[in-house]
Amino acid sequence: MTAFEKLSKANSSGKFICVGLDTDQKKLPSHLQSINRPVVEFNKEIIASTKDLTAAYKINLAFYESEGIKGLESLEETLAFIPDNILTIADGKRGDIGNTSSFYARSIFEHFNFDSATLNPYMGKDSLEPFLNYNEKLNFILVLTSNPGANDFQKEFLQSGEFLYQSVLKKIHKWNLNSNCGIVFGATNLNELKENLSNIGKLPMLIPGVGAQGGSLQEVCKTLFSSGKNSFLINVSRGIIQKSLGKDFAEAAKNELIKLNNSVAEIQRN
Amino acid sequence: MTAFEKLSKANSSGKFICVGLDTDQKKLPSHLQSINRPVVEFNKEIIASTKDLTAAYKINLAFYESEGIKGLESLEETLAFIPDNILTIADGKRGDIGNTSSFYARSIFEHFNFDSATLNPYMGKDSLEPFLNYNEKLNFILVLTSNPGANDFQKEFLQSGEFLYQSVLKKIHKWNLNSNCGIVFGATNLNELKENLSNIGKLPMLIPGVGAQGGSLQEVCKTLFSSGKNSFLINVSRGIIQKSLGKDFAEAAKNELIKLNNSVAEIQRN
Repeated sequence: MTAFEKLSKANSSGKFICVGLDTDQKKLPSHLQSINRPVVEFNKEIIASTKDLTAAYKINLAFYESEGIKGLESLEETLAFIPDNILTIADGKRGDIGNTSSFYARSIFEHFNFDSATLNPYMGKDSLEPFLNYNEKLNFILVLTSNPGANDFQKEFLQSGEFLYQSVLKKIHKWNLNSNCGIVFGATNLNELKENLSNIGKLPMLIPGVGAQGGSLQEVCKTLFSSGKNSFLINVSRGIIQKSLGKDFAEAAKNELIKLNNSVAEIQRN
Repeated sequence: MTAFEKLSKANSSGKFICVGLDTDQKKLPSHLQSINRPVVEFNKEIIASTKDLTAAYKINLAFYESEGIKGLESLEETLAFIPDNILTIADGKRGDIGNTSSFYARSIFEHFNFDSATLNPYMGKDSLEPFLNYNEKLNFILVLTSNPGANDFQKEFLQSGEFLYQSVLKKIHKWNLNSNCGIVFGATNLNELKENLSNIGKLPMLIPGVGAQGGSLQEVCKTLFSSGKNSFLINVSRGIIQKSLGKDFAEAAKNELIKLNNSVAEIQRN
């Protein structure tokens, strides 16, 4: 299955919440702290309890890289627990000159065999192309992010009459020759989301920023469903995997995901 | 020594060329192809032959990540060969929401103990802050890059009357509270370099794009020295480490570096 097919299958069966495996070794349940590979054991249990309910798994590369080689071992083992039919996202926000980007793409799409990646557009077309050349993968390119710093440059107003993030969005459509581009659009930017629905069109969306960062799941889903948009993922990381820090963490994560899925389903019905 | 002190010491002793260890496993001398850890052996010999002559080593993380765990092992071993008094640059162009960036900073500055990093500003201030909080490190933030894609967004003209890259440059000055910011400015943008010398001011510069990418070492050095600028690094990767693909690769790299250093010295004298 291509990455896009995995996403479509999840979305068409009513799954829109993506579990973010931003697993912080320092915030694990205390009963796991003393075992040999706590991150792997934690992820294994989270995946076992959420795999039938999640639309995708987003893996934040920084959390694994911060542990060096041991972290990459945890990453490889974690990926092995994820069933083949579920979309995996390497969240690394990569982007470099073409020759270098081809090595990042090889790392993410070949070495680790992720289905998709998040990319940073600041360096322009040739910095993204090595990723876009992988037909069966998906590339979520940063358009408007969920953090306060989105105001610094992404919302700069251009002489051409649009914001920088809108210029990025427009170019992504042009570069989407293999129909393997998606966008990252932060849930904290609800007004911008409403104003750009037609600019976004059919591009699949990865939406971070609900929960800890303050975006509203309800408002985002209402906005998207009411405009007929049905190809998106809403990422929740800490809100799910840190729901409980006790022995019941996996069960608590599952219950939270069920609750979130039900909220989305209710909005989709209405 | 802090990162800035290492840079100053190199520059004040006439060293401005930085050797880029973009070591491509597929482009190694043939006599190394069959040994156990060819990248490590290659880097070891390059470092041994260039360490008294280089201003810094820039390590392109993508080339190591593309080999997964084995690549990170090569990275760790390579770093161990670099003498403590030489500046090391982790070229990864990272940038993410604050909580995630703190993990990238931990990886680069603590786990691998690099002196400096390259960063992508698209996500704004809070995406850079975790790096800027390390007082003794240096952060080279992308301003105007050397690749064709620099035209896509970095050279967008803003309603405020400047280009996006100029707006980035201006904010870097504001954010430079710990005097640990530098900038990346591509050698292929000679006109922009000339026009922005006073905007750049005292910020240390990392300058890629000479050689394979078409920038002129002579013109860039002439421009910088004649304006009194003396805190910068000109990176050369392929032009040095792939100068010969024979058994004499380390000697050829050394000779090329001597030639480049002499060119720079001659421009500095005049």
